[in-house]
Amino acid sequence: MLEIYHHPICPFSRKLRIVLNEKRVEFELIAEKYWERRAEFAALNPACDTPVVVKQDNVILCSNSAIFEYFEEVMSEKNLIGDSPLERAIVRSVCDWFDNKFYTEITKYLVTEKFIKVVTKVGEPNSNAIRAAKKNLSYHIDYIDHLLQKNDYLCGEKITLADFAAAAQISVLDFIGDISWERSHRVKHWYALIKSRPSFRPLLFDKVQGIFPPKNYADPDF
Amino acid sequence: MLEIYHHPICPFSRKLRIVLNEKRVEFELIAEKYWERRAEFAALNPACDTPVVVKQDNVILCSNSAIFEYFEEVMSEKNLIGDSPLERAIVRSVCDWFDNKFYTEITKYLVTEKFIKVVTKVGEPNSNAIRAAKKNLSYHIDYIDHLLQKNDYLCGEKITLADFAAAAQISVLDFIGDISWERSHRVKHWYALIKSRPSFRPLLFDKVQGIFPPKNYADPDF
Repeated sequence: MLEIYHHPICPFSRKLRIVLNEKRVEFELIAEKYWERRAEFAALNPACDTPVVVKQDNVILCSNSAIFEYFEEVMSEKNLIGDSPLERAIVRSVCDWFDNKFYTEITKYLVTEKFIKVVTKVGEPNSNAIRAAKKNLSYHIDYIDHLLQKNDYLCGEKITLADFAAAAQISVLDFIGDISWERSHRVKHWYALIKSRPSFRPLLFDKVQGIFPPKNYADPDF
Repeated sequence: MLEIYHHPICPFSRKLRIVLNEKRVEFELIAEKYWERRAEFAALNPACDTPVVVKQDNVILCSNSAIFEYFEEVMSEKNLIGDSPLERAIVRSVCDWFDNKFYTEITKYLVTEKFIKVVTKVGEPNSNAIRAAKKNLSYHIDYIDHLLQKNDYLCGEKITLADFAAAAQISVLDFIGDISWERSHRVKHWYALIKSRPSFRPLLFDKVQGIFPPKNYADPDF
């Protein structure tokens, strides 16, 4: 069985768990505090980020987009990136928006300031950084709202990898209590659709010491 | 013909120019000062980063990995990412290392501090950031040296997209005079191989106001 080094606070690990559940791939989770840069983990993945996939034949897959493209290729029955090169280009560019832009402007800051600094006891949370990230979040919620004006999902009428990329980032913020659902009824409705999927369900039971998710985090009808 | 919004100081634009030359795709370059976030450019690509590809039928492609996967799919005669899903996973993860890790730890800092702050006259270059980026660069040169210990190219005996991803980052640093070639003979030899390719040649004639590349920048036998 696949072994996945992951952490509940890592959005890319969350995205991978959802996608593998959608594709009905079985896997075993190994929790990795990636910020500790453990030597054995660095030997698997010199970048020291999660997720890392270890296959039975000891083949190691790492780096976000490489892992997802791999599973799209080998488990192509459940296609999550579209049928034509152009459709795939659109899905990949929306994924890139959330995996890189949303992550570096929001999730990375909030996870570092509100969680990693607390557990590692290195420095005080920087309130300016938290404020900037929350301001960025408003713009990004408006952008998701804009993408949803024509369709139920981010890239059209069908759910794609882009929806899971976005929902994974948002679920981390929701887990640490940083989403205000009042800003967009449309975004809330879309997130409820994703959250209700069986593939998403295990994420609702994640537990991390020191994090107390808001009451409606685990509720699909929040 | 394809129109490419690019900038000579943007490593992802450089990577795309090399790759399209390798694949013998014709294109026309339009210089875009992406940091100015021009409204017409933001309408093409809300992330306001380069490169952006505009096709004849007004189809717009943006975001680094989406653009490269698109050209791999539609111009697959010259394969740059490998034959099997596993080979492709390795090439993509090395690309990701340079496109994301190398870029955010080195190129982004040096371009911002030494170029964008100067042309926009917003703030003084931060010498601590420059020092940190140069220190990171030493580690990354050692990593490239390590990747080249077994083979001529980063992912084996054949040149791949990973080599162009890495060379594009390095060529930006070379252009602004931040590469010290003494650290690794192996890395210098590898870069000389890439630099000698006809696909790379146009980059050696790039001109940017305020940048005076070192004498050996344009010399393939530096």
